[in-house]
Amino acid sequence: MFAAWPALLAAAARLEREGPPSDAPALDLGALERPVPVPSQAFGIGLNYADHAGESAMALPDRPLVFPKFSSSIAGPNEAVATRSDALDWEAELVVVIGTDCYEVDAADALAVIAGYTVGQDLSDRVVQFEGGANPQFGLGKSAPGFGPVGPWVVSADELGAAGRLDIRCDVDGVTKQASNTRHLIFDVPTLVEYLSYRVRLHAGDLIFTGTPAGVGFSRTPAEWLRPGSRIDTTISGIGTLITRVTGR
Amino acid sequence: MFAAWPALLAAAARLEREGPPSDAPALDLGALERPVPVPSQAFGIGLNYADHAGESAMALPDRPLVFPKFSSSIAGPNEAVATRSDALDWEAELVVVIGTDCYEVDAADALAVIAGYTVGQDLSDRVVQFEGGANPQFGLGKSAPGFGPVGPWVVSADELGAAGRLDIRCDVDGVTKQASNTRHLIFDVPTLVEYLSYRVRLHAGDLIFTGTPAGVGFSRTPAEWLRPGSRIDTTISGIGTLITRVTGR
Repeated sequence: MFAAWPALLAAAARLEREGPPSDAPALDLGALERPVPVPSQAFGIGLNYADHAGESAMALPDRPLVFPKFSSSIAGPNEAVATRSDALDWEAELVVVIGTDCYEVDAADALAVIAGYTVGQDLSDRVVQFEGGANPQFGLGKSAPGFGPVGPWVVSADELGAAGRLDIRCDVDGVTKQASNTRHLIFDVPTLVEYLSYRVRLHAGDLIFTGTPAGVGFSRTPAEWLRPGSRIDTTISGIGTLITRVTGR
Repeated sequence: MFAAWPALLAAAARLEREGPPSDAPALDLGALERPVPVPSQAFGIGLNYADHAGESAMALPDRPLVFPKFSSSIAGPNEAVATRSDALDWEAELVVVIGTDCYEVDAADALAVIAGYTVGQDLSDRVVQFEGGANPQFGLGKSAPGFGPVGPWVVSADELGAAGRLDIRCDVDGVTKQASNTRHLIFDVPTLVEYLSYRVRLHAGDLIFTGTPAGVGFSRTPAEWLRPGSRIDTTISGIGTLITRVTGR
């Protein structure tokens, strides 16, 4: 699944031992591809920061609220989002990358099944998401092509542990829209792994989009939407910045 | 994707030309494997027969109500369902197998992107499905390992067209629990393909579980559940019978 990892790990070990080579080429971030394979399953978690549940005028969930990011929505850090949506919204999220096939994993053992973490956007077409009325279509509204960009890379769980104290920020066209910290997650990463894995078998490469903090567009007055030309910078401390550009169709 | 198909088609052509060989061995149905690859996406449709919406005391949806069958739930015709669930329910369903990557397909063109049809069970743990209260967990309640058996084979769309007039029946331990016809689908197969494909990119091998008619266990008085030892025979005319056995864990 992660065929390139042995080479990457060897390179990292050499870098740590020898320092950067004096003739190191400049890193071309524009050439980065999706840092994970297309997952067989990607889970989204709704209302997992109290301030976002509040701005959505929804009660705090008493257990993780799970919806699918259908696999065809998962994209890399340099794939533009081509959309005709009139209600495209941002959602900055910490994304968990599962490292091994597993089932029924207790929270205390969760780190052993996590390969690492990356930055993600749970892009959402609010028209499609809520067109079902009493039965909202979370999965479809959040799974158009390109609606699940992740990257720019994966930082391993032995660096970040349970990723429980990371700053998370979303800037749209240079203006900060979301700024929080993963310590405000209602259900933390180990709890999410336990909850999901007791209900569904997880596979290596599966992704968990852990939820977004307050500050999304549809909760603003007036509502704000992404437009062709918008640029989203999603930053998580200890991981990096995912840049996502929106284009028309 | 369908690596065995050329050989199957050649065998079928020979059979049509020469008739069955006189020394044909008995067909061992017990050796059949899952007739489709593990899909990258499997969609379930809720409340898609009016009589089932009625027995569920839910309003008829005005558009398809979509939930995920997470891929790890998809199983073959001879994989037993090992469960500890106390509220495991049956749902006989016609399953569409998408034949080609596609996006934004009009209903009138849907047959061109359908490889064929198979029989499926949308097995459901009603405790997990409804544990979310106001936010039911359809995807998780229907995606435990083995909860999406399909088979025993795929019948191509050039045989069945839009599969709009097929008898569908579910027998549990020899007693008929569901008996309807796909002409009672609220949203027919072409409409489902259009609805989904205008929201999510579809891939070859993706599955659409098209919904179940009246007669499920949780709507009965008293409610009825599958138990270790239960056998489910799901039959769709023109396709065949999928046999699913339940075991404990």
